[in-house]
Amino acid sequence: MSVLIKNGVVVNADRTFKADVYCKDGKIAAVGENLDVPSDAEVVDADGQYVLPGGIDPHTHMQFPFMGTVASDDFYTGTAAALAGGTTSIIDFVIPQPGQRLLDAYQQWREWAEKSAADYTFHVAITWWDDSVHEDMETLVREYGVNSFKHFMAYKNAIMADDETLVKSFRRCVELGAMPTVHAENGELVYQLQQEMLAKGITGPEAHPLSRPPFVEGEAANRAIQVAQAMHTPIYIVHVSCKDSLDAITRARSAGQRVYGEVLAGHLCIDDSVYRSEDFDIAAGHVMSPPFRSKEHQDALWNGLQGGNLHTTATDHCCFCKDQKAAGRDDFTKIPNGTAGVEDRMAILWDEGVNKGRLTLSEFVAVTSTNTAKLFNMYPRKGSVSVDADADIVVWDPKGTRTISADTHHMNVDFNIFEGRTVTGIPSHTLSRGKVVWCNGELNAERGAGRYVERPAFAPVIEAVTRQTELNEPKAVKR
Amino acid sequence: MSVLIKNGVVVNADRTFKADVYCKDGKIAAVGENLDVPSDAEVVDADGQYVLPGGIDPHTHMQFPFMGTVASDDFYTGTAAALAGGTTSIIDFVIPQPGQRLLDAYQQWREWAEKSAADYTFHVAITWWDDSVHEDMETLVREYGVNSFKHFMAYKNAIMADDETLVKSFRRCVELGAMPTVHAENGELVYQLQQEMLAKGITGPEAHPLSRPPFVEGEAANRAIQVAQAMHTPIYIVHVSCKDSLDAITRARSAGQRVYGEVLAGHLCIDDSVYRSEDFDIAAGHVMSPPFRSKEHQDALWNGLQGGNLHTTATDHCCFCKDQKAAGRDDFTKIPNGTAGVEDRMAILWDEGVNKGRLTLSEFVAVTSTNTAKLFNMYPRKGSVSVDADADIVVWDPKGTRTISADTHHMNVDFNIFEGRTVTGIPSHTLSRGKVVWCNGELNAERGAGRYVERPAFAPVIEAVTRQTELNEPKAVKR
Amino acid sequence: MSVLIKNGVVVNADRTFKADVYCKDGKIAAVGENLDVPSDAEVVDADGQYVLPGGIDPHTHMQFPFMGTVASDDFYTGTAAALAGGTTSIIDFVIPQPGQRLLDAYQQWREWAEKSAADYTFHVAITWWDDSVHEDMETLVREYGVNSFKHFMAYKNAIMADDETLVKSFRRCVELGAMPTVHAENGELVYQLQQEMLAKGITGPEAHPLSRPPFVEGEAANRAIQVAQAMHTPIYIVHVSCKDSLDAITRARSAGQRVYGEVLAGHLCIDDSVYRSEDFDIAAGHVMSPPFRSKEHQDALWNGLQGGNLHTTATDHCCFCKDQKAAGRDDFTKIPNGTAGVEDRMAILWDEGVNKGRLTLSEFVAVTSTNTAKLFNMYPRKGSVSVDADADIVVWDPKGTRTISADTHHMNVDFNIFEGRTVTGIPSHTLSRGKVVWCNGELNAERGAGRYVERPAFAPVIEAVTRQTELNEPKAVKR
Amino acid sequence: MSVLIKNGVVVNADRTFKADVYCKDGKIAAVGENLDVPSDAEVVDADGQYVLPGGIDPHTHMQFPFMGTVASDDFYTGTAAALAGGTTSIIDFVIPQPGQRLLDAYQQWREWAEKSAADYTFHVAITWWDDSVHEDMETLVREYGVNSFKHFMAYKNAIMADDETLVKSFRRCVELGAMPTVHAENGELVYQLQQEMLAKGITGPEAHPLSRPPFVEGEAANRAIQVAQAMHTPIYIVHVSCKDSLDAITRARSAGQRVYGEVLAGHLCIDDSVYRSEDFDIAAGHVMSPPFRSKEHQDALWNGLQGGNLHTTATDHCCFCKDQKAAGRDDFTKIPNGTAGVEDRMAILWDEGVNKGRLTLSEFVAVTSTNTAKLFNMYPRKGSVSVDADADIVVWDPKGTRTISADTHHMNVDFNIFEGRTVTGIPSHTLSRGKVVWCNGELNAERGAGRYVERPAFAPVIEAVTRQTELNEPKAVKR
Repeated sequence: MSVLIKNGVVVNADRTFKADVYCKDGKIAAVGENLDVPSDAEVVDADGQYVLPGGIDPHTHMQFPFMGTVASDDFYTGTAAALAGGTTSIIDFVIPQPGQRLLDAYQQWREWAEKSAADYTFHVAITWWDDSVHEDMETLVREYGVNSFKHFMAYKNAIMADDETLVKSFRRCVELGAMPTVHAENGELVYQLQQEMLAKGITGPEAHPLSRPPFVEGEAANRAIQVAQAMHTPIYIVHVSCKDSLDAITRARSAGQRVYGEVLAGHLCIDDSVYRSEDFDIAAGHVMSPPFRSKEHQDALWNGLQGGNLHTTATDHCCFCKDQKAAGRDDFTKIPNGTAGVEDRMAILWDEGVNKGRLTLSEFVAVTSTNTAKLFNMYPRKGSVSVDADADIVVWDPKGTRTISADTHHMNVDFNIFEGRTVTGIPSHTLSRGKVVWCNGELNAERGAGRYVERPAFAPVIEAVTRQTELNEPKAVKR
Repeated sequence: MSVLIKNGVVVNADRTFKADVYCKDGKIAAVGENLDVPSDAEVVDADGQYVLPGGIDPHTHMQFPFMGTVASDDFYTGTAAALAGGTTSIIDFVIPQPGQRLLDAYQQWREWAEKSAADYTFHVAITWWDDSVHEDMETLVREYGVNSFKHFMAYKNAIMADDETLVKSFRRCVELGAMPTVHAENGELVYQLQQEMLAKGITGPEAHPLSRPPFVEGEAANRAIQVAQAMHTPIYIVHVSCKDSLDAITRARSAGQRVYGEVLAGHLCIDDSVYRSEDFDIAAGHVMSPPFRSKEHQDALWNGLQGGNLHTTATDHCCFCKDQKAAGRDDFTKIPNGTAGVEDRMAILWDEGVNKGRLTLSEFVAVTSTNTAKLFNMYPRKGSVSVDADADIVVWDPKGTRTISADTHHMNVDFNIFEGRTVTGIPSHTLSRGKVVWCNGELNAERGAGRYVERPAFAPVIEAVTRQTELNEPKAVKR
Repeated sequence: MSVLIKNGVVVNADRTFKADVYCKDGKIAAVGENLDVPSDAEVVDADGQYVLPGGIDPHTHMQFPFMGTVASDDFYTGTAAALAGGTTSIIDFVIPQPGQRLLDAYQQWREWAEKSAADYTFHVAITWWDDSVHEDMETLVREYGVNSFKHFMAYKNAIMADDETLVKSFRRCVELGAMPTVHAENGELVYQLQQEMLAKGITGPEAHPLSRPPFVEGEAANRAIQVAQAMHTPIYIVHVSCKDSLDAITRARSAGQRVYGEVLAGHLCIDDSVYRSEDFDIAAGHVMSPPFRSKEHQDALWNGLQGGNLHTTATDHCCFCKDQKAAGRDDFTKIPNGTAGVEDRMAILWDEGVNKGRLTLSEFVAVTSTNTAKLFNMYPRKGSVSVDADADIVVWDPKGTRTISADTHHMNVDFNIFEGRTVTGIPSHTLSRGKVVWCNGELNAERGAGRYVERPAFAPVIEAVTRQTELNEPKAVKR
Repeated sequence: MSVLIKNGVVVNADRTFKADVYCKDGKIAAVGENLDVPSDAEVVDADGQYVLPGGIDPHTHMQFPFMGTVASDDFYTGTAAALAGGTTSIIDFVIPQPGQRLLDAYQQWREWAEKSAADYTFHVAITWWDDSVHEDMETLVREYGVNSFKHFMAYKNAIMADDETLVKSFRRCVELGAMPTVHAENGELVYQLQQEMLAKGITGPEAHPLSRPPFVEGEAANRAIQVAQAMHTPIYIVHVSCKDSLDAITRARSAGQRVYGEVLAGHLCIDDSVYRSEDFDIAAGHVMSPPFRSKEHQDALWNGLQGGNLHTTATDHCCFCKDQKAAGRDDFTKIPNGTAGVEDRMAILWDEGVNKGRLTLSEFVAVTSTNTAKLFNMYPRKGSVSVDADADIVVWDPKGTRTISADTHHMNVDFNIFEGRTVTGIPSHTLSRGKVVWCNGELNAERGAGRYVERPAFAPVIEAVTRQTELNEPKAVKR
């Protein structure tokens, strides 16, 4: 069984060129013009369309047990929706409860993920510290292909990692050649400001952004970056939502530090006026952390993507239905934090990015798949239309349009933060491991067809930093 | 008993003008030309000299019990040396042990300070938190004239204040109209880096700066500033030693936040090569926190003073003799942290500042006394040569020279970080509360002559910030 | 004839204190409580009010011949209106035509100014260069008390100074101890963008800001600052209207350069939406250069004032009536550039600054008079309520209100950019040289009562920079 | 005739992988393992070595007539030396005399370049403006494959372009889809500072950097960037030598502007102490513009490369022998400006970049060839080891060493700014269009073998900017 994508224009992160793409046995077998392929190959006509590496969403939470409920998209429904939107891989998160062995949590998530329709892999969160964590990190890296660990600087009294944990975990990452990542918000300030808002009687969703102002994120991003500098490790900041944290990244990068930033499709085009909606469902439906920001922050984020200070785009896909959100009707701190988007990211980025001239075609590919693949060492297997790569491909119709709506989307949630937006530029076909799973509006996602992706440690940038650290070892003075 | 200072040029923070100054009963009674004064007034001829407000050192630690020993200058010897150098007031620190009532510690320090030869007042440190601290802060502000509270972000496992304590204390400061101040170093990082250095076998004083790199200070400064922003309070950062924390201040100030910075005479002109001296006494003699930095940081600090992003100069005067420093011979973390300087600050600032064209005469006065007096609400009683001000005055001889040395200084310590420097510009006379206590090299400091200075709350800048906060109160959405 | 201002609270740039003020012979004769004054002194009761130094507007253009017409306020009507608003001194501009001798132009302006009701002095513009300019600058400094020279970087084909002229003039300023000032807009870019707008058929006032975007100002400010750095001189940037030029100033100041910035009352609170008004009179009535900017720039300017990167406030008062503005009905480049404001500045600054908690009382005084007086070396004669100062005083009623309108203002122009704004905080009395010229709404300005103010060269900051330059003289290598 | 490079590790800008490379007819015919190639193919064994795209030097001046003499390397000797160092393409400059038709100059340079041993192409300088320039730019773009135009902001009274020329030329570049580039130094300031130095009697090469301080470069870079913003065009800054201009680029990029920066190998590792050498030949031998800078600038430049604010590396190769440099023995302004380096760049970048952990292998390739190829639209024909690319390849021996010296280098000049440096990492083989021209120290460069490379207009980034500009067209207000 093989597929030939004909007449399209291939777009990779480095360039754009006319070529056919032949996929066989789940891999890309040939890229070029006038390919010699079997006559029984399924043909996808990409005339007038682009042939892109399938999107990689580096930040999702399928069926995540959180704040007393469970995210409504499971690994099957969520990855199926992803495929409908042109995203063929996700990086989800294993999040141990404080005290839980990392390996136990990891096995739990692996089990949950078996139903995935698309490829998947995991960041593992460090939510506490003891010798077993130290040990399990090594096992995860060496035996299970985990090369990134996540740290929540928010969520006090729950999964927050304090500075001591950051230090110990980052140091361990360096030893193992893994990339530390952080959710950057100062959890203490968030907690205190939440209490202030409740004390002032501001209990609705409008209090959510008030308790998480941009500088609270900027502070944490800056702190994490300095801890990384102290420990001599690159660092990756998830869901950069505002100028404050972007500025911290930009400063560090311009000082030569290896810092990487991720931005969510939502933060790029939704502003904080949503929290003042008089409709609770709408206001609560947008509650996620960090919150949406004012328009000036959106401009800054686009500039960050263009200027190379932000590198990847994601969704932090974590769905909760209206009845789940209602748990916080009288207390905004109880609204489950999270919004959907895994299906919409690619189209939003194309419409707002490529159509508006903010991104070139190659930059679009870089920020929707390639950069993630490189940073988390899956490249060129993922993030590339090239021979021997996995046949995760999107045929992109730049003229196709779609009006985004919860009524028609494939995600298992009754709300969509992009509701009503009409985007131009949509996937006509998605191939997952060489199989056409989305074809002109028809979704043929297969439960359990997705595979776990192992990611080796010591990506090139980590190697370089290691070398630099060794050359700069401090020396004692003889007295 | 009264004193007439004749023929000098008065320098205040706003201007320079020719005038005689008549002091009576501890106060300045008249400033002008051709004053009508009693014939028995003691006359100081200031011809060819400047008449300046006496220096205020906003950061000293006399007879401080610290790291298992006690600082060698007590309140008498330290303030006497200060007078010899033209500094007529100090702000010292009450530093309760964690668990100790603030009022108890305050009374202890008041008692120790009774022997002072010059005027004094106290910042009070918040080293822990419970309801009694909350209560004692109010008593100190309302009844004892304390309007500033200090927070150590360093010294883990000792007096370090974590973010929760910062939040609670800053919020309390706002209620009371007091100024929060911080020692900005990330105590967790310092601790971890200290352990790393010891583990690497780098046990000498050269490990001191390696365990406290500039970014560790920059991180903490930035964090404290964001906490202050969240709590809507001005903030004052003590001993800014490097570009990193200065940049955090500069960014915040240019964004309209009320942030103030203090710089030490030592950080302005001593570089970190001292820690690599093969002579332990020299290297250890310079151990203080934050440490001395490389030359580029000195340039930045001068720029900060010139450009108005740093406001006061101090010394962090905290003397330890060589035999005290020797406690850390085999483990740099045991070297008592602190250096002397209360006697030398004014001359260093003049020589490096005024003589080199970095500061105007008025700027010199501003950064050596007036700005401190304003920020801590003692102005114009202190920091001003004007009628009704305390008669704390220095007659400054711009042509006089002195070679600084531990052999000749008046401080009770056998080491001087400025050893061997020849400065041009020294005090010929110092008046403390109207009495000539230093006259051409002769010191007539009187034990116990100094008085405690009460400082009222709600300085003008705090009032303005309070008004701004009230106008921007958040509001709930009606649903 | 003398005046006693009783029961008020004096506000100077350094502090606020309760005192009566006695004025005699045009000077302040005494400041204090329980003053012993002649019984026939006129008494102004300032109970519940503030007693401030009269405002100084460092940027006005009375009866300026410009763009084919003449500004409608002459030196009498303009200064009279100033007095009604609490401004007691102006610094106007002598602007020679290219080719005109500086001294000739200077004499012309002196003559025009004789009718002034308030004190006045002049910056002199350098609009061209030859040896006579070089020579006349010296005469102006040494014989006529001019200590500042202005340079227009805009207005190509008219009075624009190119880089060569900037260099030569700045160098001459250094020799003479004068302060160079610049109008910072890149005249070439403005010209080209104007042509582009006309070519696109955008001929109305909305094209005005489009032809002068913020970066065009930022570029020029940055360039002027670098020229100043090359020539080793302080520099003063007039009417900083946007973040771009403010950032250039902030960067330079934080790098230790002596750069000063002025901001207009209008730029602080009017935004660029005015240019899209469908009413030509309104849109054209706001045409001035640099134009009003979007709101984010206003925030930045307030932050600049608070943080000490901007120093003075002005108006660039240059009135043109509607029929004058109509000259550019079909071509925005022909609309005379200029707006009024000399009467309104103090109240706008108080209402937006003090009332909103952005400025302390002393900061208000600093930015409305004292800083200007210091920078242009008129302090403490101007900008200070102190003995021997000129008796230019405003009694400020913080509860008084006024609704600003062209119908009621005293300026000779039929338009007001602040039309309809109600301000709280207005002058109840203004004293000019000891005479009450404004009393509770009644204006008694006297034609010709104003005096020319000579300003000596080598202000303190210029002296300091000169010293620094001498110490850093480059040296040749011997070969 | 074909070549098989076996057993090496291919390094491209996106990744590193083990593969053989087969070259045929000047092109890369295959990349992979176990290639099926003719038995008569010449075999290069790259075991233990890397196989890289040949270097592209985007900034050279072969046989350039300048300052009264002619650069000593002609197109043959210079390109031959380039091949010896692993550089297989150069972008040289056509520099018309003011008044000379662009096409005439272009033909002249094409003729000179026919002797080249390696591939070459040309930026064309805009040194003056009239209608013929406007017209010739189009011809060059449409008929001759020129897609970049250079502007000298320095060299007053010679080839300097003033702001008006920049505006007109940048606007024309936008119309044609070409990239404007600038040499950023404020020519007026340089001229004035040169005159000052001569007037002070500082006539030796030490005056060279004094007349071109970093801020003179920073000013021009900032100005060019703002002109580019006004004209809506990307811009490329050549030879960024200091923090000042890098900061201007970094600011613009973080604000979303498309700005690109080039850095020279020399500026990355040589400091300005060379100009104070007592040996005239050494000091003069380093005279180039912009000059070498202090060490802090070098650090900044490396940070710029790492952080993505600088994109390409070059040499500004422009050789003058000692006897040519001697023309300025008594007047530094007459020393021909220029230094060699085309042979040494790759090794310097490897040794200082890769060996020290500052650059990954892929980053090394990006900054030595790929980024230049992309920006100037030659990619993937140049800058890539991939099928159909030109067979311009370097086999890089990471363990090989060389001590750089004028005694042994292949450049036609008697001085080397890297004299005495031993680098680790050198080319063992260089292939130019599929022919082995350098093999273990033996150079077989062929006169005239190089080909002119046409570069199409409208590179992807220019297309994107064009789209963005169109979407933001200003509109008139209806009145």
